[in-house]
Amino acid sequence: MKKNLNERALTMLTDFYEITMANGYFKYNFQNKIAVFDMFFRKVPDNGGFAIMCGLKQVIDYLSDLKFTDDDIAYLKSKAIFNDDFLQYLRCFKFTCDVWSVPEGTPIFPNEPILTVVGPVIQAQFVETAILVYINHMSLIATKANRIVRASKNRAVMEFGARRAQGCDAAIYGARAAYIGGCVGTSNVIADQMFEIPAMGTMAHSWVQMFDTEEEAFKAYAETYPDNCVLLVDTYNTLKSGIPNAIKVFNEVLVPKGYRPKGIRIDSGDIAYLSKKARTMLDRSGFEDCTICASNSLDEYIIKDLLDEGAKIDTFGIGEKLITASSEPVFGGVYKLVAIEKNSEFVPKIKISDNVSKITNPCQKELWRLYDRDSNKAIADVLTLIDEVIDDGKPYVIFDPDNIWKKKEITSFRAVKLRKQIFSKGKCVYVSPSTAEIKEYCQQQINTLWSEVTRFDNPHKYYVDLSQRLWDIKNQLLVNNRK
Amino acid sequence: MKKNLNERALTMLTDFYEITMANGYFKYNFQNKIAVFDMFFRKVPDNGGFAIMCGLKQVIDYLSDLKFTDDDIAYLKSKAIFNDDFLQYLRCFKFTCDVWSVPEGTPIFPNEPILTVVGPVIQAQFVETAILVYINHMSLIATKANRIVRASKNRAVMEFGARRAQGCDAAIYGARAAYIGGCVGTSNVIADQMFEIPAMGTMAHSWVQMFDTEEEAFKAYAETYPDNCVLLVDTYNTLKSGIPNAIKVFNEVLVPKGYRPKGIRIDSGDIAYLSKKARTMLDRSGFEDCTICASNSLDEYIIKDLLDEGAKIDTFGIGEKLITASSEPVFGGVYKLVAIEKNSEFVPKIKISDNVSKITNPCQKELWRLYDRDSNKAIADVLTLIDEVIDDGKPYVIFDPDNIWKKKEITSFRAVKLRKQIFSKGKCVYVSPSTAEIKEYCQQQINTLWSEVTRFDNPHKYYVDLSQRLWDIKNQLLVNNRK
Repeated sequence: MKKNLNERALTMLTDFYEITMANGYFKYNFQNKIAVFDMFFRKVPDNGGFAIMCGLKQVIDYLSDLKFTDDDIAYLKSKAIFNDDFLQYLRCFKFTCDVWSVPEGTPIFPNEPILTVVGPVIQAQFVETAILVYINHMSLIATKANRIVRASKNRAVMEFGARRAQGCDAAIYGARAAYIGGCVGTSNVIADQMFEIPAMGTMAHSWVQMFDTEEEAFKAYAETYPDNCVLLVDTYNTLKSGIPNAIKVFNEVLVPKGYRPKGIRIDSGDIAYLSKKARTMLDRSGFEDCTICASNSLDEYIIKDLLDEGAKIDTFGIGEKLITASSEPVFGGVYKLVAIEKNSEFVPKIKISDNVSKITNPCQKELWRLYDRDSNKAIADVLTLIDEVIDDGKPYVIFDPDNIWKKKEITSFRAVKLRKQIFSKGKCVYVSPSTAEIKEYCQQQINTLWSEVTRFDNPHKYYVDLSQRLWDIKNQLLVNNRK
Repeated sequence: MKKNLNERALTMLTDFYEITMANGYFKYNFQNKIAVFDMFFRKVPDNGGFAIMCGLKQVIDYLSDLKFTDDDIAYLKSKAIFNDDFLQYLRCFKFTCDVWSVPEGTPIFPNEPILTVVGPVIQAQFVETAILVYINHMSLIATKANRIVRASKNRAVMEFGARRAQGCDAAIYGARAAYIGGCVGTSNVIADQMFEIPAMGTMAHSWVQMFDTEEEAFKAYAETYPDNCVLLVDTYNTLKSGIPNAIKVFNEVLVPKGYRPKGIRIDSGDIAYLSKKARTMLDRSGFEDCTICASNSLDEYIIKDLLDEGAKIDTFGIGEKLITASSEPVFGGVYKLVAIEKNSEFVPKIKISDNVSKITNPCQKELWRLYDRDSNKAIADVLTLIDEVIDDGKPYVIFDPDNIWKKKEITSFRAVKLRKQIFSKGKCVYVSPSTAEIKEYCQQQINTLWSEVTRFDNPHKYYVDLSQRLWDIKNQLLVNNRK
């Protein structure tokens, strides 16, 4: 019953310069030269301690379906700047790269290669835009959702943002990312059809307005859905009308039939005050089990304040501030060349910048996560050259790449390669877990982080270090450039 | 050669509560009751003086294609809460509503009905989510793009944000909205294919890195694209390497063949300083006609500062801050019930709220814009009852609905109905102009706004008034509710 929207031909969702460059590479006969590109990001949104990898499934679908149609070729030809041989090459285009990636749901940190593409330069360059769109968007939302879920302290958080999403895909794939990040469900029906994310929701204000009185509206709803009766109580006046009417209907419609009310929802006004009053009114009427849902422009900051104030809220419906990650709506992942084949050898490449934070890590690399054997907590991530092995049978010295005198010898650890091979010579060799499995894996992986890393305010900067060999190569490239 | 991605079945891109409510309306035999829903918004993003309507074309495509497939029905049936008769009704679902809307590209203001749906309540309710997704997203981006274009003071602004967009649709439809709002083109190729928005772009840092030296990379590019040669000069060192190499290549490759360089692009560092230095270096070498493009995390605020500092920038490439409208990434449009048929008459409906700003305007309405006959500037928008006519042959008194003693008699004006009929009994009766036509119309319409309304800081609050008859009905509903 799963729905697939990926029948869309999205090959041309790319930046124009990917094609002007490709045409140039073709002209200079680079098309079989092997290049290595890394995707990484530089900063966790909202000054958080970690982000969550998401969007790989969509990247796989995109790469699996890469091809130029006759329409695409005709469009490119109409630009009158591309070589006919090059257009012929595109007509026969076949993705043959290798891809490695951190699995979805994994906590990720700045400056580490979360995804690497190795292959003929035109191909490896061309896929930049789409890879960035998917992973930037979905990692942004998964990371934001997890912040909100953590602030909610074990309360159920529902993603209710479709109507304020930045387009349909943002509503659909945002719902998937939010679920992976910890939400229990979504309002968005198509996301349930596509990814089996429980779709949720009961009534809008218009339901209440559609009837002559609020009481009639509540009664009709309770009769229609006696076992999932959540009433929206703020259409007219929450305390004077909404909650009294809800209690009346619970007593008159549900209780006689042996049903218990599921909850009430408050969508406006001072939620802390109203929820406390509502709790008292419900409890006094014998509905201690009736939950209170709050849903008015909330995010992790407001939720934290509400709970600090003692608001009596059991579940949250989170809209625009989650689905757009409004406090910081950009996940700044980039995709950079790190090595290029020359005379059958890989030459490391570096992007220098006046902004030191924009300098890249050269070479084809391996990404390791080191876990403490006793606590199973993550100690550090280490980037090594692709042929290096971290032997966790022996002590290992890590050091801060920006302050190399800060060294630390670690012992009794497990070293795990964090990335899986996703494509081998253009063929997908990875099976994506189900959305629910990814969600569960995500929570497990977050449990391996120290609370110093997961806290909201000024979290500990998790170590992402370079091996000595990698650091030496990078340093030499910087020195050479300076000459 | 236009590409259509709207073959996707998006009927189920809806909130789950639209379906639970629909099932309830069906049960209570409301399905042929006529309801009137208005879409409006409450606040212009970034405290601007106006927003720009966008996304109607996509709403039309969505509404034209509304149908439930067998898979959709099977999915709904699996939830085991919907009545079989209702599912049968959905199977035969046909959109038969009337729709009125402000055309795309029109300046719009808070609290006015920019789009109205009139029709059987299940249908008119059901389309809420998708209408809001499209119009909220695209109006957000068109409005933001226009702010950036205005800050750029007649310089060309290119939309370069695809990789940081919130999903593929945000990249595609965001490019369309940005173009309508005033951008001259996009980096996103598929947006050009679909909407004929000029796709633009030349090279990334990786092009420069792919060659042994920057000079070789520039030379290769100039040879490949001699008549559109824009060189990215900040891969290694803008002033010491990038610009000197660019000038060398302009002189050695382009000039001998009779070509002029098109430009250079600076993507990092202190853009104001670098652009001034670059201008001097280019001018001294006889390339006064070589443009300078800046493109590093810019938005209207930074652009204003750069130009105030005297930065020598001719064109801007704007990425993440435009495509996500990052300073305020939500356009808070809502869709509210304003009237419902009862005994063949329309009963006005109002949503009361403890937040006064959330109180709605009841009744099926007409939206008028009054223009001064001499200056052709917009004076005010007026909401009237649907059967009222504003006779612009006579003086007309407008008043502030929140402060009714603030009255103003206007004379010598033109009264124009701002909305067009888009659907009549479910049939589309409106032909969308081309994207380029909408873009041009948008600029014309913005020219009818006083500069007091278009300025950035603390703009004049444009009048959106109610007719006396409409105000009286609203006031009576508020008084009655208070009793």
